[in-house]
Amino acid sequence: MVQPTAYIPTSEFSVIAAELAATAKALHARGWLLGTSGNLSAVVQRDPFLLAMSPSGVDKGELSAEQILLVDADARVVDARSKPSDETLLHLEIVKQRQAGAVLHTHSVWNTILSDLFADGGGLTIEGYEMLKGLAGVKTHEHREWLPIIENSQHMPALATTISAVLTQHPNTHGFLLRKHGMYSWGANLREARRHIEILEFLIETVGRTLELDRSRL
Amino acid sequence: MVQPTAYIPTSEFSVIAAELAATAKALHARGWLLGTSGNLSAVVQRDPFLLAMSPSGVDKGELSAEQILLVDADARVVDARSKPSDETLLHLEIVKQRQAGAVLHTHSVWNTILSDLFADGGGLTIEGYEMLKGLAGVKTHEHREWLPIIENSQHMPALATTISAVLTQHPNTHGFLLRKHGMYSWGANLREARRHIEILEFLIETVGRTLELDRSRL
Amino acid sequence: MVQPTAYIPTSEFSVIAAELAATAKALHARGWLLGTSGNLSAVVQRDPFLLAMSPSGVDKGELSAEQILLVDADARVVDARSKPSDETLLHLEIVKQRQAGAVLHTHSVWNTILSDLFADGGGLTIEGYEMLKGLAGVKTHEHREWLPIIENSQHMPALATTISAVLTQHPNTHGFLLRKHGMYSWGANLREARRHIEILEFLIETVGRTLELDRSRL
Amino acid sequence: MVQPTAYIPTSEFSVIAAELAATAKALHARGWLLGTSGNLSAVVQRDPFLLAMSPSGVDKGELSAEQILLVDADARVVDARSKPSDETLLHLEIVKQRQAGAVLHTHSVWNTILSDLFADGGGLTIEGYEMLKGLAGVKTHEHREWLPIIENSQHMPALATTISAVLTQHPNTHGFLLRKHGMYSWGANLREARRHIEILEFLIETVGRTLELDRSRL
Repeated sequence: MVQPTAYIPTSEFSVIAAELAATAKALHARGWLLGTSGNLSAVVQRDPFLLAMSPSGVDKGELSAEQILLVDADARVVDARSKPSDETLLHLEIVKQRQAGAVLHTHSVWNTILSDLFADGGGLTIEGYEMLKGLAGVKTHEHREWLPIIENSQHMPALATTISAVLTQHPNTHGFLLRKHGMYSWGANLREARRHIEILEFLIETVGRTLELDRSRL
Repeated sequence: MVQPTAYIPTSEFSVIAAELAATAKALHARGWLLGTSGNLSAVVQRDPFLLAMSPSGVDKGELSAEQILLVDADARVVDARSKPSDETLLHLEIVKQRQAGAVLHTHSVWNTILSDLFADGGGLTIEGYEMLKGLAGVKTHEHREWLPIIENSQHMPALATTISAVLTQHPNTHGFLLRKHGMYSWGANLREARRHIEILEFLIETVGRTLELDRSRL
Repeated sequence: MVQPTAYIPTSEFSVIAAELAATAKALHARGWLLGTSGNLSAVVQRDPFLLAMSPSGVDKGELSAEQILLVDADARVVDARSKPSDETLLHLEIVKQRQAGAVLHTHSVWNTILSDLFADGGGLTIEGYEMLKGLAGVKTHEHREWLPIIENSQHMPALATTISAVLTQHPNTHGFLLRKHGMYSWGANLREARRHIEILEFLIETVGRTLELDRSRL
Repeated sequence: MVQPTAYIPTSEFSVIAAELAATAKALHARGWLLGTSGNLSAVVQRDPFLLAMSPSGVDKGELSAEQILLVDADARVVDARSKPSDETLLHLEIVKQRQAGAVLHTHSVWNTILSDLFADGGGLTIEGYEMLKGLAGVKTHEHREWLPIIENSQHMPALATTISAVLTQHPNTHGFLLRKHGMYSWGANLREARRHIEILEFLIETVGRTLELDRSRL
């Protein structure tokens, strides 16, 4: 078995780790990372590949920069301080498929509800909102965003394969939902990933509350 | 082509820029400026005319005073640091039409929902609430506020023209909605503009939740 | 005309003013004092009577201790810095009727909605909740709290007279609603008044959301 | 009558008291401990048994570490500064039954609503959510959590007996509801108890809002 890449912490990693911790705190404050739910990552370098990743089982409201782990392309922890999130494989798959610089995974009340309500249709269409323009590459509100919904699973390699297929099939999506689980989004960097999360969470809540007022749209 | 007005930053501009940044942070915390949505402006001086304006594509939760731009009456940036919001033309139109000292544009979940739900009627009536007394010039709760809804567009000059016509037609409105987009409000100064935003957002949420409880009012 | 009581600011007034400002900030953060809505008061001394009162037209999110006014039993400002809230007469009436040490008036979305929805019945019954035990004098959840609803008016002396009659008729209520306006509650001191506000706002939201789920209770 | 255990405050107690106060502040900010509602405890030592317990009738938003009390296994206050919460007996019962290191009791709007809505069925099933994996011992989202609902009572010894019976009957539950009152959850330590509270509150709100959208599930 190949040894994990030897790693000497760089100042770049320190900056990224601090930004991930600050992002976790802000998203926890909004109720999108309650308990130990959700996880966050950002690419530190591409060659050799290193990903800064939130650890498993840590409360996101008190995640510190010191707790952020480094994993390589095979999801092995570079320094053996603790276990990375079980969902590291999913982050790596998204980074590979989308050339993403950061991946965020949130559990909000509204994304959980809609991930179940629209599961039979395989996803959710969000269309015609100005807010969509904040998603990378979208230039007009006359945009139709398809948010795929994937059945939840505890088998991470299988789930990574499914996600890979869905991302290939829908090359323009900016996120996806796992059924009764949560949302994934990503971006070229952490700032863009967070922007995408805020936008998609906003739109999901808007769609959900619109349905409460006008069920004929369901 | 006339050159933009030469500008030496004044202490007044610094104060206004800091207030705009603080306002952005507070409105972002309430979820009314998520992602890069929304924008803010305040008049620095009337002659020659200079407007402090939020830049394009910046996350409002971390907007700093240093990022606030200065634009002239023709929407040209006075110092060339970055691009102002695409919607600068709309701010300028509102400032001109209403003699406003500040303009705020928010994207809240509730204003987005109602901007679509009431679009066919061309607007939304809000009537009989004490909260209306916080709007400039309103002396009693027995007031009928008409909040016009304008179809969204990416063509800013055309949208500015439509807004100008709507404001002329409804000289007493304190704000308007863009369909599936967001709300604009304004005031004699930034403090009044923010007060109007808080009041209108409150009333829009109140109307929306009342409809959930009593759909016969829809 | 009798001159207002001469007043030299005491350290007690400074403490009360600071507490009122901190309370305003906290209630504004919850969205219960948006814009310039709502007002707050606390008794400084009973003989001669002096009430610390929030000024008129000030944004509650940025109310400072220095802006708190002192008024006498006839609602005259003791020092002439600015105008007290128009609703000072209502605070004075409540202080007199209930021997209250502090009065708080909030505008929340939920109290505004229910103040209209239940207006025809003259009030709202809240019954059987453990949370009721936080109201002064209530020893069990098997308590039936009647929250009277009074028609809104801009004529303060008339409204004060109506409130006086309602409080006399319902000697055990801990608050009341003004229709499409907001809620008043009070307590022996500011701490108790704030506790009552938190409890009544919680219960009003609970009743409102229960109705959304189960309209047969309406 | 046996005298309460003599107690000299330890640094461990100081740490636990500070953590309880910080937890109270955070849960109050989310609206889960409004007014004086709710209470918190954590085991300081098992032999002789000492429990750090929040006092009775204190506003949880301003609870300080200095106000935290120490009680023994018979709910007697070790140092006589003030009265512990009336519900101390319930905390002690849970600690004994579950070998818990900390117990938290919250009053949220959603737990209050569902504690009444599902009372006739004796409890609430929460099933299939990824969020459930944050509960101690749950390894997959394919988990069925039963949240018992117990009728509220002011008679604490009787209520403690009922709770004891319910916990014995349902050895795997991570919390329970008191009807129209609130929720109890616990954990091996304060961090785990707080994680459980965040998770259960999240899931209760998710179930409640799902019912609003799809009443056929009620």
